Amino acid sequence: MSSNEPLQRAARPPRKPRSDGERSRATILREAARLATVEGIGGLSIGRLADAVGMSKSGLFAHFGSKEELQLATVDLAGELFTEHVLSAGDDAHSARERLSALTEGYLRYVSEETFPGGCFFASVLAEVDMRPGPVRDAMIGALTGWLGLLESTIREAQADGAIAKREDPAQLAFELEALLYFSNQQYVVLRSSEPIERARRAIQGRIAAATAPR
Amino acid sequence: MSSNEPLQRAARPPRKPRSDGERSRATILREAARLATVEGIGGLSIGRLADAVGMSKSGLFAHFGSKEELQLATVDLAGELFTEHVLSAGDDAHSARERLSALTEGYLRYVSEETFPGGCFFASVLAEVDMRPGPVRDAMIGALTGWLGLLESTIREAQADGAIAKREDPAQLAFELEALLYFSNQQYVVLRSSEPIERARRAIQGRIAAATAPR
Repeated sequence: MSSNEPLQRAARPPRKPRSDGERSRATILREAARLATVEGIGGLSIGRLADAVGMSKSGLFAHFGSKEELQLATVDLAGELFTEHVLSAGDDAHSARERLSALTEGYLRYVSEETFPGGCFFASVLAEVDMRPGPVRDAMIGALTGWLGLLESTIREAQADGAIAKREDPAQLAFELEALLYFSNQQYVVLRSSEPIERARRAIQGRIAAATAPR
Repeated sequence: MSSNEPLQRAARPPRKPRSDGERSRATILREAARLATVEGIGGLSIGRLADAVGMSKSGLFAHFGSKEELQLATVDLAGELFTEHVLSAGDDAHSARERLSALTEGYLRYVSEETFPGGCFFASVLAEVDMRPGPVRDAMIGALTGWLGLLESTIREAQADGAIAKREDPAQLAFELEALLYFSNQQYVVLRSSEPIERARRAIQGRIAAATAPR
């Protein structure tokens, strides 16, 4: 990254409209997100992505302007896929307790359906950048904090409904459920078998059952 | 790596004896292992390490010969540290059940004492290389499988002692304990607080207590 890049960015022309020969921004970013889980987001340069999607570097540069802009756009796209594949799994739940199960189940499906080839985008990229301060690390920590917060608030809601016992610490229970999800993802990437998915599912069901308020 | 490297390696002179000005092989590898958890083992070249330890590239080359040889020697050293910091924690236990707790506690201490700056060497490097086939990935999977196997066999032993209930599936329980350890490490690296360590400890104690055979 040259030291006068901000200047170059400010001076660059507005984005070129997409021609028929080009692939859409979303298609490019989906490929970028896939690539990031295989080769690392650090290797996600405009040149590397140009090779992978079969576009010219100048064409991609018109879309993204810089490596960091490309990386952050990729993070945004991965967030959209996470919403679509995981968060939306909770939409049809009739109660907070049901939504908690649906969200964890959505995550397990998102891993085992190989939404990304290298497993959960956020787990993969967080592990890569956790010692590299910068906007990508901030975004990964924000995503994990947001997901843990969603589990926790769903647990609180289920407590308010009387479905989860008041003795449970919501942040502690969220931590335990996420630990199972997180490790099942790592194991799935290595084993490519349903075993870690089923182990996590069994443990999560058991843990939620143990947290259930007595009737 | 040049294609005739095996030839070059075969032809290279035996290791130079260490002069006073040089740092020992173990000291160099300890720095290499620390660096691998911060910058990634993929970035662990002889040149990068020479900068970090203040030795000449040729001096390090005499020790390790190639990048891959250096990486594998680093993995071996990390294994020695894991034995020293984690596995040895189980040495004084009087029963398998006690050893199970001591091993998990040893791991939590190994993380929170920052044995490596970027958290558990094996978790960090596994996440990095899980999509990169080769001897480093094989070694990381072997280490994780070995650790899970140790937890599992310790649980089986505790079952034979009558300390852990027969209804528990040892591989399932090992998976659940490791999930808590694994996620506490990732959270510790990000938060640098004792919170994830304490959450994992509480959950592990609770899970082992739930698995305890009735007297």
